Amino acid sequence: MSDDLVTFGETMLRLSPPNDERLETAREFEVRAAGAESNTAIAAERLGAVTTWMSKLPNTALGHRVDGGLRQYGINTDVVWTDDDDVRQGTYYLESAGRPRGSNVVYDREDAAVTTATPEELDVDRIRNAQAFYTTGITPALSPQLRETAATLLDAAQQAGTMTAFDVNYRSKLWSPEEARKTVTQFFQVVDVLIIALKDAKAILNYEGDATQLAHHLASEFDFKTVVVTRGDQGALAWNDNVIHEQPAFETDTVDAVGTGDAFAGAFLAQRLSGADIQKALKYAAATAALKRTIPGDVATVTKPEVDAVVNEGNADISR
Amino acid sequence: MSDDLVTFGETMLRLSPPNDERLETAREFEVRAAGAESNTAIAAERLGAVTTWMSKLPNTALGHRVDGGLRQYGINTDVVWTDDDDVRQGTYYLESAGRPRGSNVVYDREDAAVTTATPEELDVDRIRNAQAFYTTGITPALSPQLRETAATLLDAAQQAGTMTAFDVNYRSKLWSPEEARKTVTQFFQVVDVLIIALKDAKAILNYEGDATQLAHHLASEFDFKTVVVTRGDQGALAWNDNVIHEQPAFETDTVDAVGTGDAFAGAFLAQRLSGADIQKALKYAAATAALKRTIPGDVATVTKPEVDAVVNEGNADISR
Amino acid sequence: MSDDLVTFGETMLRLSPPNDERLETAREFEVRAAGAESNTAIAAERLGAVTTWMSKLPNTALGHRVDGGLRQYGINTDVVWTDDDDVRQGTYYLESAGRPRGSNVVYDREDAAVTTATPEELDVDRIRNAQAFYTTGITPALSPQLRETAATLLDAAQQAGTMTAFDVNYRSKLWSPEEARKTVTQFFQVVDVLIIALKDAKAILNYEGDATQLAHHLASEFDFKTVVVTRGDQGALAWNDNVIHEQPAFETDTVDAVGTGDAFAGAFLAQRLSGADIQKALKYAAATAALKRTIPGDVATVTKPEVDAVVNEGNADISR
Amino acid sequence: MSDDLVTFGETMLRLSPPNDERLETAREFEVRAAGAESNTAIAAERLGAVTTWMSKLPNTALGHRVDGGLRQYGINTDVVWTDDDDVRQGTYYLESAGRPRGSNVVYDREDAAVTTATPEELDVDRIRNAQAFYTTGITPALSPQLRETAATLLDAAQQAGTMTAFDVNYRSKLWSPEEARKTVTQFFQVVDVLIIALKDAKAILNYEGDATQLAHHLASEFDFKTVVVTRGDQGALAWNDNVIHEQPAFETDTVDAVGTGDAFAGAFLAQRLSGADIQKALKYAAATAALKRTIPGDVATVTKPEVDAVVNEGNADISR
Amino acid sequence: MSDDLVTFGETMLRLSPPNDERLETAREFEVRAAGAESNTAIAAERLGAVTTWMSKLPNTALGHRVDGGLRQYGINTDVVWTDDDDVRQGTYYLESAGRPRGSNVVYDREDAAVTTATPEELDVDRIRNAQAFYTTGITPALSPQLRETAATLLDAAQQAGTMTAFDVNYRSKLWSPEEARKTVTQFFQVVDVLIIALKDAKAILNYEGDATQLAHHLASEFDFKTVVVTRGDQGALAWNDNVIHEQPAFETDTVDAVGTGDAFAGAFLAQRLSGADIQKALKYAAATAALKRTIPGDVATVTKPEVDAVVNEGNADISR
Amino acid sequence: MSDDLVTFGETMLRLSPPNDERLETAREFEVRAAGAESNTAIAAERLGAVTTWMSKLPNTALGHRVDGGLRQYGINTDVVWTDDDDVRQGTYYLESAGRPRGSNVVYDREDAAVTTATPEELDVDRIRNAQAFYTTGITPALSPQLRETAATLLDAAQQAGTMTAFDVNYRSKLWSPEEARKTVTQFFQVVDVLIIALKDAKAILNYEGDATQLAHHLASEFDFKTVVVTRGDQGALAWNDNVIHEQPAFETDTVDAVGTGDAFAGAFLAQRLSGADIQKALKYAAATAALKRTIPGDVATVTKPEVDAVVNEGNADISR
Repeated sequence: MSDDLVTFGETMLRLSPPNDERLETAREFEVRAAGAESNTAIAAERLGAVTTWMSKLPNTALGHRVDGGLRQYGINTDVVWTDDDDVRQGTYYLESAGRPRGSNVVYDREDAAVTTATPEELDVDRIRNAQAFYTTGITPALSPQLRETAATLLDAAQQAGTMTAFDVNYRSKLWSPEEARKTVTQFFQVVDVLIIALKDAKAILNYEGDATQLAHHLASEFDFKTVVVTRGDQGALAWNDNVIHEQPAFETDTVDAVGTGDAFAGAFLAQRLSGADIQKALKYAAATAALKRTIPGDVATVTKPEVDAVVNEGNADISR
Repeated sequence: MSDDLVTFGETMLRLSPPNDERLETAREFEVRAAGAESNTAIAAERLGAVTTWMSKLPNTALGHRVDGGLRQYGINTDVVWTDDDDVRQGTYYLESAGRPRGSNVVYDREDAAVTTATPEELDVDRIRNAQAFYTTGITPALSPQLRETAATLLDAAQQAGTMTAFDVNYRSKLWSPEEARKTVTQFFQVVDVLIIALKDAKAILNYEGDATQLAHHLASEFDFKTVVVTRGDQGALAWNDNVIHEQPAFETDTVDAVGTGDAFAGAFLAQRLSGADIQKALKYAAATAALKRTIPGDVATVTKPEVDAVVNEGNADISR
Repeated sequence: MSDDLVTFGETMLRLSPPNDERLETAREFEVRAAGAESNTAIAAERLGAVTTWMSKLPNTALGHRVDGGLRQYGINTDVVWTDDDDVRQGTYYLESAGRPRGSNVVYDREDAAVTTATPEELDVDRIRNAQAFYTTGITPALSPQLRETAATLLDAAQQAGTMTAFDVNYRSKLWSPEEARKTVTQFFQVVDVLIIALKDAKAILNYEGDATQLAHHLASEFDFKTVVVTRGDQGALAWNDNVIHEQPAFETDTVDAVGTGDAFAGAFLAQRLSGADIQKALKYAAATAALKRTIPGDVATVTKPEVDAVVNEGNADISR
Repeated sequence: MSDDLVTFGETMLRLSPPNDERLETAREFEVRAAGAESNTAIAAERLGAVTTWMSKLPNTALGHRVDGGLRQYGINTDVVWTDDDDVRQGTYYLESAGRPRGSNVVYDREDAAVTTATPEELDVDRIRNAQAFYTTGITPALSPQLRETAATLLDAAQQAGTMTAFDVNYRSKLWSPEEARKTVTQFFQVVDVLIIALKDAKAILNYEGDATQLAHHLASEFDFKTVVVTRGDQGALAWNDNVIHEQPAFETDTVDAVGTGDAFAGAFLAQRLSGADIQKALKYAAATAALKRTIPGDVATVTKPEVDAVVNEGNADISR
Repeated sequence: MSDDLVTFGETMLRLSPPNDERLETAREFEVRAAGAESNTAIAAERLGAVTTWMSKLPNTALGHRVDGGLRQYGINTDVVWTDDDDVRQGTYYLESAGRPRGSNVVYDREDAAVTTATPEELDVDRIRNAQAFYTTGITPALSPQLRETAATLLDAAQQAGTMTAFDVNYRSKLWSPEEARKTVTQFFQVVDVLIIALKDAKAILNYEGDATQLAHHLASEFDFKTVVVTRGDQGALAWNDNVIHEQPAFETDTVDAVGTGDAFAGAFLAQRLSGADIQKALKYAAATAALKRTIPGDVATVTKPEVDAVVNEGNADISR
Repeated sequence: MSDDLVTFGETMLRLSPPNDERLETAREFEVRAAGAESNTAIAAERLGAVTTWMSKLPNTALGHRVDGGLRQYGINTDVVWTDDDDVRQGTYYLESAGRPRGSNVVYDREDAAVTTATPEELDVDRIRNAQAFYTTGITPALSPQLRETAATLLDAAQQAGTMTAFDVNYRSKLWSPEEARKTVTQFFQVVDVLIIALKDAKAILNYEGDATQLAHHLASEFDFKTVVVTRGDQGALAWNDNVIHEQPAFETDTVDAVGTGDAFAGAFLAQRLSGADIQKALKYAAATAALKRTIPGDVATVTKPEVDAVVNEGNADISR
């Protein structure tokens, strides 16, 4: 069975001390598989899309921890396994906290196996046969090789008629605004559906306008089919066929904010792939994002009926 | 020593993943004994009533887990132990979460031992010798046998001069509104003190008025001695001798909402049994309910001085 | 890609208190997916066979907990999802302990969804297209329907040229020796590879001889291609082409003995399917079983290189 | 209902780091209620005796932690609650380890509430109405007041025809051998059934002979009805009516050795109270003690059928 | 290297059930070292001051648990170790909860080793050589000996030109307002920098005015160099050279409120010792106090850059 | 105060799943600071030596986690903190298991901060002023820079009259036997006390004789003052002044074997530094190593009295 959606990118081991403990005094870490493109894949699968996450991992217990950790959510994984000693499993240490401490991330992802992934070793035909292909701006930020590989995959997808979707996802710890701008605007040439946070547009595109202006501007400049601009708890909007669709955020009691944007992207794509119109896709995306924030970890372990309930009734609280 | 209060009903094992984790990805469950009538019994005991919970359990490690789990809170238990292989220990799986996910319950309580409990095997004299007897609308919803047994116990109690108290406690996962209405209104004939949530009245009695009207209406139609109507965080009111007493809810930081109503009922009954007037009993009930919500699990592990402090000062925060 | 091995049977949620705690006083349960046929599937996959576990599960968070729990080990799952309220997710409560307490199991698996599985709703073609099909004596013990279904699947497999493998796996808590004997000897007609514990042969076949005699006896009476007789820490032997192959057990520090036989079966089948001779397959089976006992849970989360190391060097201790 | 057995003594909070961690680096403690006389009470209750533990506790959350912790095992508690600020809840810190580290105990039990318990505030009639009364040599070691109180209770029991049982239980951290000898030999005057470890006889009575000689010697010198001498994994023996009965220890995989002697004593007494002869009582005592060692905590959370199984078959391993 | 700051006082083991569980039903306690003067020492060290905590501890695993627990935060400890059996490690049991339950403390700190500390056994020269010395009103409340010792140390410090700082820290569970007033006003004679909560001034000084008036009043009556008055979430103010400096509290999501005042004091002193003016020191103190409330335990495990970020940007949320 | 012992080397974060869980399925990791030279430092400190561990760490929460984690054991740390983004905190993943699985280590220590440590940034004078300096063969295996740095430090120490001690500690995952031989034999020129495992001598020196022959051979070839040869559970021996001293291993129930050799080395050096003769030092070393194996983690959190007890009585089991 061919895929509705293929995503490509790095998934790390996320290590976080429980119960707001600090990294500096932690005695235990919770371990989870976490990465933008696998997060998005899972959210899409949960909303009904047949989805495969594609990547490269070290053939160690840690690499298999990541792979199994993703498979349990129901997605397929298509992994290039490497025994190369010079690459490793990327990790990140997450410390969650409330105001004014906020959350703190220590990346330890240098030399991850995926940074050496080439188009030759990846199953590009799987992408060509899928309905849609997705990656984010994190991927090209990880290595020059990945910059090339991601560009090649997007290009191959678009040429094969696979819808290409791209979330800018700017990470200031990985590259400078200038580097990011240069690369992502090149990528824009082969992207059909762009997702961009307003704050990222400000940070790397030096854009000054509001979300609506930004959507119009990007759509006209890069000829996207769809542009989605997210604004955190201010909601999101989408430009499509020259029309702007607005969607407010749902109220949510946040337990873990990481992965919110990925849940949004995955749900939006799944809805679009199943034929939903832009407005409905945005609403499902916002509902899935809100549910994600109640769930520990990076991943939106939601069910379609729950998202339906939030979309229709504002919450998924089930009577006894 | 005879009991101030005897309660009768099912107590389950409650299995819940810690820290907002989802059932679907849980690696561990917290285990607690939980059931409306044992919750109420414990709240009453905590407020000073000598209380026994009566039920039927499988003679397995799971049944004894429930019994011991209740005894540690200080109540007495009067259990019919069965070795019948066709019955089992009821369980329920609870997933707690904030908005918009809300809490999710998976009942797994079919064929629980208590569903086969007959008046003949229960110690009805203990009920006859008690000051009060309490059960809820959950009990008759569990099996036809229990419908009969609960009716028999209420009737025996009332005939012996034991005050009968009944909390409607509608559970839409157990029976339809129609079935519930038919049964509970029959039960109303042998009930002295009725406790009913306004939303349950709407759901099963198709009642349209407000809480005050409901109380008057029920009191006149069924000749209750007391009718208590609860409205969640909108507070409660009680009809007694044709007078309405209002009681707002206390502000609370909710950790676990399950069992709030049972804590309310237990404290109300304990206060009434120790001679408190309706207004005071309502206030203690509201304070106990508010404290319950700060405590994980179904059970109001409060102390009398703490409830006194909330009643008198609004909180039980103890100085150092 | 067609499967090397398809297995069919029930997988339960296994709930066990950590650290030798008793069920009666447990405050938490570890949660794992556990079932003979999925255990075997995973062991086979780990040794290199492409494997699918086939079953029926309730479409609840608990059913999906089982499915995801199995997928993380790398196997494929082919699940009939049901929304039927009359069936449930089977569970079992496991209490582990040393001598003289031993381990204690409380089954709570009545009315599991799988007990209603019919050949019509299962993907029998997947079995027909596989190299081998496997189930155990637990499956027909669960319900009359499953007795029929399992027989039908074995028959369909054999007719399609799929090798059929069957582990007797007698469970005295599920049926009597007489019922078991009657059913499994009927099944023997459509089984190519039989795996049987010597103690089960004694319990249900009233067999008095030693393992070698048993293997010869069964092979001649039922015309099996291969008969494997296991004897716990006394090792195993296999009859094949009228030759007996012996294999002692590896020494092991047991952490969790549940699933040892399933690990043995899975490794044996995987080796046979990849062309190993009987003696080598037995040795890999014994090594995998020994490794299993060092791993908490029912499942042999081993790697092929580890099993190779145990087979070749007696242990998988990796130098630093 | 009157008691088969009443026990009197101190129960502490036992605080121990999990998983062999050291106290010096512990981040968490497991919390359990633990004390010789409540351990014995629970073992007796488990074997079928109706049992009450009698003591004095501070009326704090810690005192109620102890009381509830004991009640969950099924015994009754008869507690004098005190609000006296000068007394406290006794605790002990336990560090468990294998050879050569061994286990390490830090007592923190000075000024425990029970050290002030007087006969006047205790329900001596409950003792007089019981079949048997039990305390240990720990009790008089805790305070001069308790020395007096324990003597008074034993005397009152014996005068009322209640069988008195006493376990010497020497604790070198509480008193010197000389103090212990002086006090316990006075107590011997009012004791019917003496339980003594051979090593304690050596330590405080300066006894040089073997266990048989010791039993004869004590029986003749102090006119006991029964003398039980325990020798750890060397088994136990009992002198009764001038006959010596031997009982070897059962093999056991020790998880927690604390409370072994108390389990032995409780089972022995329960058997004797239910009419068992000395030999049978010894065997049940040894089996219960062996089971205890497989259970974390001080308490023998066994069931009668398990002990039956160990007595009859050597283990309680239950088939699946 | 001589110290910037030496603090002197008691540090206890803090035992608290996780996840809002009640003491009465707790199965585990989190273990932390906690005490006002060590909390303050650590906050000061974190902000850059070289700091030593001075005290007396029992030479047991528990005493070393406290010492090691403090050293891991980076401060130095200067401990008098005692083998005296009559003293012990002080503990306190903390139950945290939201409204209306609030937090509950059970002190178990009688006869702590530090209550016997004399100036002779302490390294007074270390205090004389430090830039500043700090203790709180808890210290003299613990024993008559400590009242003398604390007075002697403050006096010695002031005579040696070491700045003396004192936080009134009234504990109603330790002494009466009258006792406290009498002692702390004597101490005021040898204090340079006074920190006092407005509510403590009301409780023990019977002061009726507002914080500004209080600061002026105390400064003029006792000739302090600096007076800091704290008002919880109403912020703080400081009197210095006859000028009042105001500082509002930062908004914070409180996870653990214990130790907030100590974090404030430590940061204030560290800033002053490094040359900051009063206004800046107050701002750092408020920011550190706000961060503390997001961290479990008594201790402000902050970093200087985090506090800088809160001071400058209102939060320390670090971008990815 | 100058040090008795300074050690230099890498300390990692050790991440290990609890309870024999596999890395591939782990949900949590226990976090500990672990490294040969800090392990040795702590064992020496525990036995009475004033000890400093010297190294270089990243100035992140992870680096400070290591530093604080070591300080809590009582040693001093002398750390070069770096903000260089190109280096990181080394980690290793440890999976513990019994036979035949054994323990499995995944190193993730490439580019650790310490690999860039130069003599110029380290406090070489601290080494010159110490009585002894210690490092192991792991240090030069980590980077060419460290090879140079370690050689320089050993040389500087020896020239200053500081006793140099070196444990060969061969790690086959870090370098080949040839590389190791070449480097460590160069180091031997500046080493006074050599510690070498017999198996390492076989692996890298291609030595064929027994331990006694090895000791004589090395002593004569490299002119060591002392040569200690360890043989795991076969005990150890030492050559000194041409005399061989034998020491058998103590029996031990192993909970965590990692760090056994470091505990041995630390105790041996501490004893020698405090004037013990070779035989006594060996016995203390063996006792400390045996105790270490009962303690989770890399570190020998022992006390001097415990080691005394093992040396004198064979165990440290403390009576109650």
